[in-house]
Amino acid sequence: MSSTEIADRLHQESIIIDGLNVSNWDSDAVFRDLQLGGVTAINATVATWENLRETLDHTTAWYRRLRERADATTLIETVDDIVAAKRSGKVGIILGWQNASPIENDLDRLDLFHRLGVRIVQVTYHERNLLGNGCYERVDDGLSNFGLDAVREMNRLGIVIDLSHVGERTTLETIDVSSQPVAVTHANVKSYHDMKRNKADEAVRKLAECIRSMMRGNLKGTLDDYLDSIDHLVQMVGVDHVAVGTDHTQDQPPEFWRYIASQQGTRFPSTFVSADTDYSKVDLYPDGLKTPAGFPNLTAALLERGYSEEDTAKIIGGNWLRLFREVWGR
Amino acid sequence: MSSTEIADRLHQESIIIDGLNVSNWDSDAVFRDLQLGGVTAINATVATWENLRETLDHTTAWYRRLRERADATTLIETVDDIVAAKRSGKVGIILGWQNASPIENDLDRLDLFHRLGVRIVQVTYHERNLLGNGCYERVDDGLSNFGLDAVREMNRLGIVIDLSHVGERTTLETIDVSSQPVAVTHANVKSYHDMKRNKADEAVRKLAECIRSMMRGNLKGTLDDYLDSIDHLVQMVGVDHVAVGTDHTQDQPPEFWRYIASQQGTRFPSTFVSADTDYSKVDLYPDGLKTPAGFPNLTAALLERGYSEEDTAKIIGGNWLRLFREVWGR
Repeated sequence: MSSTEIADRLHQESIIIDGLNVSNWDSDAVFRDLQLGGVTAINATVATWENLRETLDHTTAWYRRLRERADATTLIETVDDIVAAKRSGKVGIILGWQNASPIENDLDRLDLFHRLGVRIVQVTYHERNLLGNGCYERVDDGLSNFGLDAVREMNRLGIVIDLSHVGERTTLETIDVSSQPVAVTHANVKSYHDMKRNKADEAVRKLAECIRSMMRGNLKGTLDDYLDSIDHLVQMVGVDHVAVGTDHTQDQPPEFWRYIASQQGTRFPSTFVSADTDYSKVDLYPDGLKTPAGFPNLTAALLERGYSEEDTAKIIGGNWLRLFREVWGR
Repeated sequence: MSSTEIADRLHQESIIIDGLNVSNWDSDAVFRDLQLGGVTAINATVATWENLRETLDHTTAWYRRLRERADATTLIETVDDIVAAKRSGKVGIILGWQNASPIENDLDRLDLFHRLGVRIVQVTYHERNLLGNGCYERVDDGLSNFGLDAVREMNRLGIVIDLSHVGERTTLETIDVSSQPVAVTHANVKSYHDMKRNKADEAVRKLAECIRSMMRGNLKGTLDDYLDSIDHLVQMVGVDHVAVGTDHTQDQPPEFWRYIASQQGTRFPSTFVSADTDYSKVDLYPDGLKTPAGFPNLTAALLERGYSEEDTAKIIGGNWLRLFREVWGR
């Protein structure tokens, strides 16, 4: 069997999970490319700055979308659902948040949204919320009273806590407080590329030592650069704690970029971005993985780097699956 | 003229302002006692934990109340309105917030509510909000990006910034950042009574030195104890920076106490109160000033302590008037 045939077979047999996708969910191309790439499940962002009402609306829209695309998509609420998605060839949709803003001031809403299917919640987005601070906030004093209780409640419910975009002290405190493994779905480490969105080595080591976790962030350049950053992480924390989160933003219009880069979802430009950059024009993804259609290239590149089939399968989906099983509890 | 007659005359001639009243606005007794006490204007709390929608509802209810009680109350939007209230013998209602929660994530809502009549806004309540931290929060790293801009926007609009209930670092940073005088409408100093709600001497001195401000908190015991705490403040920062904020909670039901003492308006007991205390039964106010009807006793007691008529008039209302004129700009 040629190396191409081996890669194709491994990709077809494996469960492929993308830890973060925040594309335009009303675009047909998005769903086409997910199927082209053989993606089994994605953490699909439902909310970034949205409040309760807006998130209920977005969730309702997802149910409609899942009905309309029932032949090609399916809602993921359990690990069994992911296995079933693989078997049926459908793209599994994990409803996830990049902010805890949807619960506003009431922790009981975590239970409400868990029942509605939300399985991954990022503690904060770029800035401050009632739980803690984001990575672009001017200060970070860690978790609030409300934030501490929110972590405990997510642990109780079996919601994966995501620490991407989260401020440094809030990240470390959440790792300390959480009784469940936590995740960084889409970020890199500062020792690989020093920017505010990336994580301090201390946090990454703590994640991997105390509890299981996994991470990979978007990174423009060649697929080779992308593989370098995977290597860096694998060397730091071991192959069991590294996975993929593309942060794909396929077909998103300029309004999307202004919204996510705004102050608290309302004011643009914010303190951390300039109004001059049109992010919809910025190249954010590695060659060969510009959209989810490129996922088979990643599998092939990992094998080519010398990762075993077993380790490759872990990185492209197996590690996510193990974490979900542990946290979701089913 | 006897000392009683002098006190009565001074009280009748003076503008009496209560820096904070959070009573049950649907109680007739509240408005009766405000008139009995000859009170010219109060900072009437419209919101503590409320969000945008709830605060719009409470504001709407205030317009109804002001219509229904048009013979005895009047809305205060300018200093002239206070002078007119004094002349007509009506109780002036200053719409105020004890939290910035009503604007949720949009600073432009400060303009909206300013147009609706809101003239005093406390930066935070007991815990964290998007601007900064409250005095019962487990940590306080000061103002957020959003909080910095909120202070600037309140400065621009001419909204009095209230620092009662605000965490220590958030208090100090707001004093530093604000281009307008700020206020502590209802708190005392830690050097007089050491509790979380009270202010560090550093903050109080800074308030009085850099900018004008005034303060007084509730304090059970005798009116004499209350006067002691006024003396303490006058000695610290001078008579121009001391005023009254009773924090009266007349006729509030047990639900009110559970709400204000809750975590973020939803969870009771919170991290900072016990479920065992029925606050509606706790004695919080000095003898002689259990309700606003007792205000003439305060005037008499100040004169009896040896405060001049001029200084007494400052403490019971004149200092508030001066601050409002400066910040509101009209």
